[in-house]
Amino acid sequence: MLRESVDGLKWLAETQSDAMVLTSSGTGAMEAAISNTISPGDRVLSLVCGVFSERWAKLASAFGAEVERLKVEPGKAVTAEQVRAHLEKSTTKFHAVTITHNETSTGVLNDVQQIGQAVRQHGALSIVDAVTSFGATELPIDKWQLDVVVSGSQKALMLPPGLGVIFFGPKAWEAKSKCKTHSFYFDLNKYKKSLQEDTTPFTPNVSLIAGLQASIKMMKEEGKEAIFARHLRMRESLRSGLRAMGLELFVNDDCASPSITSILPPADLSVDKIRKTLKDRYRIIVADGQEELKGKIFRIGHMGYVFDRDILMTLASLEAALTELGHDCRANEAVKAAAALLSSTSR
Amino acid sequence: MLRESVDGLKWLAETQSDAMVLTSSGTGAMEAAISNTISPGDRVLSLVCGVFSERWAKLASAFGAEVERLKVEPGKAVTAEQVRAHLEKSTTKFHAVTITHNETSTGVLNDVQQIGQAVRQHGALSIVDAVTSFGATELPIDKWQLDVVVSGSQKALMLPPGLGVIFFGPKAWEAKSKCKTHSFYFDLNKYKKSLQEDTTPFTPNVSLIAGLQASIKMMKEEGKEAIFARHLRMRESLRSGLRAMGLELFVNDDCASPSITSILPPADLSVDKIRKTLKDRYRIIVADGQEELKGKIFRIGHMGYVFDRDILMTLASLEAALTELGHDCRANEAVKAAAALLSSTSR
Repeated sequence: MLRESVDGLKWLAETQSDAMVLTSSGTGAMEAAISNTISPGDRVLSLVCGVFSERWAKLASAFGAEVERLKVEPGKAVTAEQVRAHLEKSTTKFHAVTITHNETSTGVLNDVQQIGQAVRQHGALSIVDAVTSFGATELPIDKWQLDVVVSGSQKALMLPPGLGVIFFGPKAWEAKSKCKTHSFYFDLNKYKKSLQEDTTPFTPNVSLIAGLQASIKMMKEEGKEAIFARHLRMRESLRSGLRAMGLELFVNDDCASPSITSILPPADLSVDKIRKTLKDRYRIIVADGQEELKGKIFRIGHMGYVFDRDILMTLASLEAALTELGHDCRANEAVKAAAALLSSTSR
Repeated sequence: MLRESVDGLKWLAETQSDAMVLTSSGTGAMEAAISNTISPGDRVLSLVCGVFSERWAKLASAFGAEVERLKVEPGKAVTAEQVRAHLEKSTTKFHAVTITHNETSTGVLNDVQQIGQAVRQHGALSIVDAVTSFGATELPIDKWQLDVVVSGSQKALMLPPGLGVIFFGPKAWEAKSKCKTHSFYFDLNKYKKSLQEDTTPFTPNVSLIAGLQASIKMMKEEGKEAIFARHLRMRESLRSGLRAMGLELFVNDDCASPSITSILPPADLSVDKIRKTLKDRYRIIVADGQEELKGKIFRIGHMGYVFDRDILMTLASLEAALTELGHDCRANEAVKAAAALLSSTSR
């Protein structure tokens, strides 16, 4: 089961890097990324555009790194140009740059391919959080030459939470060999060695590895390109329906996430009321904004096991909920707009 | 679910210490124990009587502790007298002592109550691995004044693997406040804070927390004392049956584990052959010895969801397997001996 799962993860990431499965949350995989590559005092640049990209900075700091932040406004992406400029003006070299592929707290997809190139040219390790992007959009690790990529079981891999995933490339192993950080549970040397015997160093979450084997099989049947296209279709149809409803989207089209969409509530309604009505009436749970965005946006996830009908259901329910709350949803055009887009797309 | 689970864990451990649930293997909970209490250079005494107690020593070393081992032969328990003598002869104080309640690799139960007392008198923190003892035998943390106790979901808590459990007492929190070790994912301050809002700092293994809530409910229905008595009954009936079969037990009665029993193979049969026949013929998986004991013993687990009928089934199957392999099992007295013991015990 483990062997098939690991091979499947490598297939999905188009990589020869080592893929390892950890019994942990996605944050555990992030800790594995940092604790195997960063020594106290190492300079780390964290690209921050929301809660999860800020987590990289906190994590690296906790392990003694000297962290610098390149921060953009929530709802915006960090661009490769900004990264390049920041790295070029720096007088001393950065050991690593942390990147958040899909910033779940805002619904922004960062251009990891271009950013990764800038990081590589600077000579730093690229450490990528792909928790909510891996499996939802392309992330060809070898082609994009990324060093460390982490993800978790509960997003586009379609499983319950409880497994972390980490890809660790040659430059990362080289960094590991010089790394002075204490670690034991997340020591990747142990996982690599155990994997040679198709096992893990510590009792793993067996149920979820069985699940991963099954979800990889489903993904192979659907096909990588078809999965990624489906996520784009989810994004486009949802956004078109939301706009038809007269709602304002938090993120511009050019960096909108294929796996989660943030929406501003209408001026006359609170996020709390919208969330409560959707949950009580329609059993649909949408997320609040996090930290500074709490109450300012709500977020609809559409990663993994999500299909055309779910978008239609969500739009129809949201429209009904807003109408019930007294908001004028124009001519109830949301479902129609989304359905038109869905019907016109080949799959 | 989390609140009920955590309260249930405290009920089972008879403690006012903080109980926290981690999404990790049991070893992750061990890492949490060390990384929240031990700073590089701290002196740690590890009581070693097998593979899992040795893991404490390795883990503490990985975090920079200066580790000393008090080592006994596999199959023997570490006694409180040995610990007391070792601590007394030491010229400098130990910061912490690691203890393995039930050494799973040999099937030995160490006297944590007495050892804990010796450790407390020395002024060191007691850090206890209770992965395969918690829920199988009494472990009243407050009465025994233990500082840190860890366990996992997949043993006497009757769940699949994937959750770690940690109990953290006042002296441990005091040590934590002075601890200089880097940690983020296992930083217990975060778990304690989140628990005040009935949540966890990172997406937890939701399915297993639902499971823990259910298993705690089952345990409350059966009753603590009844559960511990059942484990003793499993141990006694199994041992009596094995002896009736003419097999030699690896561990003396005075420190035999209530949750796992190690057996020497008859001189004419290999552990491999016995394990293979049990698995192929009877779908019963018994464990090999680990490391230096590989091929020298086999181990029958009887923790958690194990009842009288399972002991009878296992003895009957083992007897049939040995007979099939050409070994003379005397007068097939094993089941009879065990059944007699089981029938005569009140529950």
